[in-house]
Amino acid sequence: METPATTLSLIDDLVSQLGQGAVQWGEAIDARYQADWSGAPPVRPLALVHPAHPGEVATALRICHAHRVPVVPLGGLTGLAGGAMPQENAVALSLERLNAIEQVDTAAATLTVQAGVTLQAAQEAAQAAGLLLGVDLGARGSCQIGGNLATNAGGNGVVQFGMMREQALGLEVVLADGTVLNMLRPMLKNNTGYDLKQWFIGSEGTLGVITRAVLKLHPAPRARVSALVALPDYASAIRLLRLLQAHFPGALAAFELMWEDFYATSLRWSQLASPLPQAYPFMVLAEVTGRDQALLTDSLQTALGEAMDQGIVLDAVVAQSQAQALSLWRIREATAEFPTHLVPINFDVSLPIDQIGDFAEQCVSALTARWPDQRTLRFGHLGDGNLHLTTDARSLGASLTPEQAAHEVEEMVYALLAQRGGSISAEHGIGLHKKPYLQASRTPAELAAMRAIKLALDPLNLLNPGKIFDLTQQDPKATP
Amino acid sequence: METPATTLSLIDDLVSQLGQGAVQWGEAIDARYQADWSGAPPVRPLALVHPAHPGEVATALRICHAHRVPVVPLGGLTGLAGGAMPQENAVALSLERLNAIEQVDTAAATLTVQAGVTLQAAQEAAQAAGLLLGVDLGARGSCQIGGNLATNAGGNGVVQFGMMREQALGLEVVLADGTVLNMLRPMLKNNTGYDLKQWFIGSEGTLGVITRAVLKLHPAPRARVSALVALPDYASAIRLLRLLQAHFPGALAAFELMWEDFYATSLRWSQLASPLPQAYPFMVLAEVTGRDQALLTDSLQTALGEAMDQGIVLDAVVAQSQAQALSLWRIREATAEFPTHLVPINFDVSLPIDQIGDFAEQCVSALTARWPDQRTLRFGHLGDGNLHLTTDARSLGASLTPEQAAHEVEEMVYALLAQRGGSISAEHGIGLHKKPYLQASRTPAELAAMRAIKLALDPLNLLNPGKIFDLTQQDPKATP
Repeated sequence: METPATTLSLIDDLVSQLGQGAVQWGEAIDARYQADWSGAPPVRPLALVHPAHPGEVATALRICHAHRVPVVPLGGLTGLAGGAMPQENAVALSLERLNAIEQVDTAAATLTVQAGVTLQAAQEAAQAAGLLLGVDLGARGSCQIGGNLATNAGGNGVVQFGMMREQALGLEVVLADGTVLNMLRPMLKNNTGYDLKQWFIGSEGTLGVITRAVLKLHPAPRARVSALVALPDYASAIRLLRLLQAHFPGALAAFELMWEDFYATSLRWSQLASPLPQAYPFMVLAEVTGRDQALLTDSLQTALGEAMDQGIVLDAVVAQSQAQALSLWRIREATAEFPTHLVPINFDVSLPIDQIGDFAEQCVSALTARWPDQRTLRFGHLGDGNLHLTTDARSLGASLTPEQAAHEVEEMVYALLAQRGGSISAEHGIGLHKKPYLQASRTPAELAAMRAIKLALDPLNLLNPGKIFDLTQQDPKATP
Repeated sequence: METPATTLSLIDDLVSQLGQGAVQWGEAIDARYQADWSGAPPVRPLALVHPAHPGEVATALRICHAHRVPVVPLGGLTGLAGGAMPQENAVALSLERLNAIEQVDTAAATLTVQAGVTLQAAQEAAQAAGLLLGVDLGARGSCQIGGNLATNAGGNGVVQFGMMREQALGLEVVLADGTVLNMLRPMLKNNTGYDLKQWFIGSEGTLGVITRAVLKLHPAPRARVSALVALPDYASAIRLLRLLQAHFPGALAAFELMWEDFYATSLRWSQLASPLPQAYPFMVLAEVTGRDQALLTDSLQTALGEAMDQGIVLDAVVAQSQAQALSLWRIREATAEFPTHLVPINFDVSLPIDQIGDFAEQCVSALTARWPDQRTLRFGHLGDGNLHLTTDARSLGASLTPEQAAHEVEEMVYALLAQRGGSISAEHGIGLHKKPYLQASRTPAELAAMRAIKLALDPLNLLNPGKIFDLTQQDPKATP
């Protein structure tokens, strides 16, 4: 297909301002820029731009704005909701060359990075200064700080340090027309008018492109102890959570709940023996941080002993070495094996914590009523009220394509969720894939307010258009 | 003065929808609704409306919107920046009858309250459930949760639990036209499109009226120990902060720095003897929380001993009883005596923490060069990077009125602050009084973005107009 003249004119402008090496188009665009981890089929963008520094991001956006061409910002492309999926009619703007760690300020406990720095590189820079970045997640080696902020990433540390939003002290953001908002202030407290940076965090690149960030760091804990804990029922998991939070205020670093379906499957896949002699309805992997490994191990044993006396805990193993801790964590990290063993239909929902147990049961009952052979694994960051459910599309029978299966399971689960006022996305975002269901979690008045804000900051709808919501008043599909 | 017909028609509509008892006008408006704690002269509003529940707030706003009459929301009126000052041409909307504590959910550790609940009532409701609300401040008995959220209040607990923003899980907000945004979701994680509630927190009632909130609670600590610590210099204060954060991860509950000028003045006013035998350049009041009073006291003594060995700390007293802790805190709480002993010109600034010592010196040098007898007290929430400076207007000589004195000191301090990229308001907000200086802390592009958002959500500029910024592109006064 021949490149249209309007596109060539845009490319000319981009090349003349950013240089030949910073712009690709047509077949020169490498496949890795054409898809994210969401499983959506690849899309070749109109052009791919690789700015070398934040100022070039502003230049690229100004040029695209002048040509009225939409722009899709690309971070590490590890998103599961399709928020960074390229579009045929849009320029893809890769942030990966903005990979400078600009400052680690030990006195202030802050880290200033460009948007394309990977989460892992940021973590390592903090660590080298004896500090800790509060967010961690499986894609750490590929995902980028800009994308983590744009999607308000969650992950493993939320129960202790909050989401990515809570780590952000300052941002630099470029608006659709190339205007630079310099909000790179490192202060913890700053009540000078609207806290603009909050609008961009979690807006999935639809309001502005994040180019730099100042992140808050925490003192690195000197000790860290994990335990695997067996529980009789869901209510005991909440009681254990509160007991550990009271025993280790501010120091409970993880509280991961696994239903028996998840736990047994994980052991089967890994061919590991359970560290506990029998099966239990629920298992929790908990981690606490402190100053002294031996003292902390003792304290955790004491706390779990107390929980056992109260009947909350049936059995427990406290890791006595880092190797043992890793082997416990391996059970939880079976999620990385999902694509190998399943055709996964994934959910990332949140609910008031006391409803999660019932809701998980209700989902499995409804799925089983419809598909007696259905296989669903349940697990979650219980400390954050975040439940993950993964149904194997193949367990629903051969009569459905994986797409049909996903669609039907989603309709069922989100309808049950909407009845309880839950959230269809606790941490993964909406992107493209959850857009049809957004109304299950947001009222029409909220959606109208989002659209008003989008139009105020990006009146031509050029930034990542069609992600999260469409600008028409009616979403394409009504909620069940 | 006769009430104009347009106003009578508005009052008729308000009375017919809300009832006679919910609407006052003219001389019937009690003086306490005509001013806040900022010291600005009282202003009688067009009318005063007292809705009895959130639905009536929407009704009142709908009526005022139909009449194109502006509305100023009133919380506890304890603000220091004039953000809730009534206006002659606007209806004042008091939230005080929205004082129901709707739910304390112990399992979820959440508190649902209406906006007019005082901070203290909310704290007590949390406490009765064995939980803790993370925000505390001196005005707790009068200030209201809605106002705390609208101004993103700070106070004493920020170093441990963050500002009011960090406590907010869900909000209900009424827009200028009466549209209700129901965002009362109690989930810790909810990445379903823009996190709308963030826009209203800290927007000082200019974007919407907060009517209900779901707040996050924390486990109540069983032990709490305070210490007063003497330091040789400012750099040692930062080192002590980091040392205590490392010793007590997540459990450092206060870290209040007092310069010698503040400390000596406080002792003189209270006629208390210093708990330490001599004077020192800097004093810190630190507080840590934990599980066991005796163990925690020991740990704090150990940590301070370590700091003394490193030369960071010159002397220290660790409170051995609650009475002793209170007497230490009394020194810090001399701020309540400011209006009695001074004609205070107050600053509430934030800066990168490593610059605060130099900046405080620089301000005092500049003030002394101009007014050799100037008297300034310096103190702050150092754990949050928040410096308070208070200059006694009377110490600047009799040739200036207090207003002129305030103006000249403000010009001087904010000019020095702007050079360092500091914030003119760490926690008190902008309101009316800091509006002329907003450009010292925000770029023109940021102010333009704020105005665009204001117009998107309140196109007729009816909600608390003229607070924070004016809608004209040029603020009335350029920054020094």
